[in-house]
Amino acid sequence: MKGPKGKLLAIGGGEDKERNMRILHRFIEESGGTGAYIEIITTATNLPEEVGEDYSKALDTIGCKNYDIIHVDTREDANEEKFLKRLKKANGILFTGGSQLKLSTILGGTEFLKLVKEKYISEKFVVAGTSAGAAAMSDTMIVKGSSEDSLIKGSLQMAPGLGFLQEVIVDTHFTQRGRFGRLIQAAASNPACLGLGLAEDTGVIISNGNTLETIGSGLVVIVDGQNIKYTNLTDVYDGDPISIEQVNLHILSKGDAFVLDERKFLRKEK
Amino acid sequence: MKGPKGKLLAIGGGEDKERNMRILHRFIEESGGTGAYIEIITTATNLPEEVGEDYSKALDTIGCKNYDIIHVDTREDANEEKFLKRLKKANGILFTGGSQLKLSTILGGTEFLKLVKEKYISEKFVVAGTSAGAAAMSDTMIVKGSSEDSLIKGSLQMAPGLGFLQEVIVDTHFTQRGRFGRLIQAAASNPACLGLGLAEDTGVIISNGNTLETIGSGLVVIVDGQNIKYTNLTDVYDGDPISIEQVNLHILSKGDAFVLDERKFLRKEK
Repeated sequence: MKGPKGKLLAIGGGEDKERNMRILHRFIEESGGTGAYIEIITTATNLPEEVGEDYSKALDTIGCKNYDIIHVDTREDANEEKFLKRLKKANGILFTGGSQLKLSTILGGTEFLKLVKEKYISEKFVVAGTSAGAAAMSDTMIVKGSSEDSLIKGSLQMAPGLGFLQEVIVDTHFTQRGRFGRLIQAAASNPACLGLGLAEDTGVIISNGNTLETIGSGLVVIVDGQNIKYTNLTDVYDGDPISIEQVNLHILSKGDAFVLDERKFLRKEK
Repeated sequence: MKGPKGKLLAIGGGEDKERNMRILHRFIEESGGTGAYIEIITTATNLPEEVGEDYSKALDTIGCKNYDIIHVDTREDANEEKFLKRLKKANGILFTGGSQLKLSTILGGTEFLKLVKEKYISEKFVVAGTSAGAAAMSDTMIVKGSSEDSLIKGSLQMAPGLGFLQEVIVDTHFTQRGRFGRLIQAAASNPACLGLGLAEDTGVIISNGNTLETIGSGLVVIVDGQNIKYTNLTDVYDGDPISIEQVNLHILSKGDAFVLDERKFLRKEK
């Protein structure tokens, strides 16, 4: 099967926007350089102006010439011709942080999202997302689940995401918010899915919809539930703790890669 | 090899002392029932009176007739005959929470600790510990390491513990404080060691120094680094993120067991 021509850039939130901006630099580079047409999509956030301004400053510093902010705030917006026109021209877009449920409820099934997917499949187009924008990338996303109550049945809420990735569950702010437990729980609920935990200022570039390269200053945690031998998930009641026999984890840092369909760790070349 | 005759009870901190007190009930039961001689060792804490009072209330409610509090606060205390005499008579002891480094610096190499170990090896004697009291049980213990900076080289401080258990690293308040990362890092630093992460109000009873049974309301996480294929731990500098290819985790809840030397999960019987 031939993968999409575009690339995904999933970021764990809190990417540096003031100092070295390594992740944003890479986003621009993958999109074709400082002349590329970039759109920042602020749909997820309740503070679109502030967030838009932060990215504007960062992209100005990087020297981007053709960027703009799109605030699609309703499903009507998401079918509006003026936005579709700008999207058609774009080489790269970035979904900001906020609420992943806002992204899916506003964009799901709209012309806007349809066009993003078409471009991702058929063009050298970059779809970036940070925090909620990354969490929403897969077909199933985590909507809610505290770190403290993780691995307790019923503590985790999931919902359908934007669907750029299949059989992957993305979690963000991962080491900073201690989210190992909830991602293990998510992966155990369907061991076909790989859990992808992204630390802040850390991201993965996914090429061909399949090969993932780690960038940024922190860690990427992969939870592979395929070899789970046993779980009591279906036997216990809501509020009960969960048992899982054998789940595999990988910890990736800058330069390490991972092949999703082979579940294979590729070490950084020295 | 014949294991010790005694049992260990390692508790993740915050065990219920007011309502059903399941863990404390089990401690008393394993020690021989409400007639057993119990000593609460408050060495780890800076609030020995408050902590002693909490346990006194709990043990009164349970109906214990022969318990007392031992506050060994210096290395001299730990060689005093009056404490050794009481310890000789005891059927079970419990190290309270506080600082694990206080436990090791005050008790390490003293007559008190020597006697505890002799009794643990040769008698039906129960050594319980909660929070710091559990963290200090193994030969290597985690002394410091934040959840947020976990899996960053240099972020974790370890020290020699009291040594009731070999090749195990115990961590406590585990799911509540998001400590997966630091325990994975500890286990990766020596894959011969199993990481044992105990949630609050949760514990393990270890028989024969080898078979572990989960009790209490929460989870026990076992980190098994034996199958780690690669880590960059020796290649990177302090402050750099760590890569680890393949670490196995098990999540145990009440009734699940684990055999340490075989690294084998035993499911709860239905």
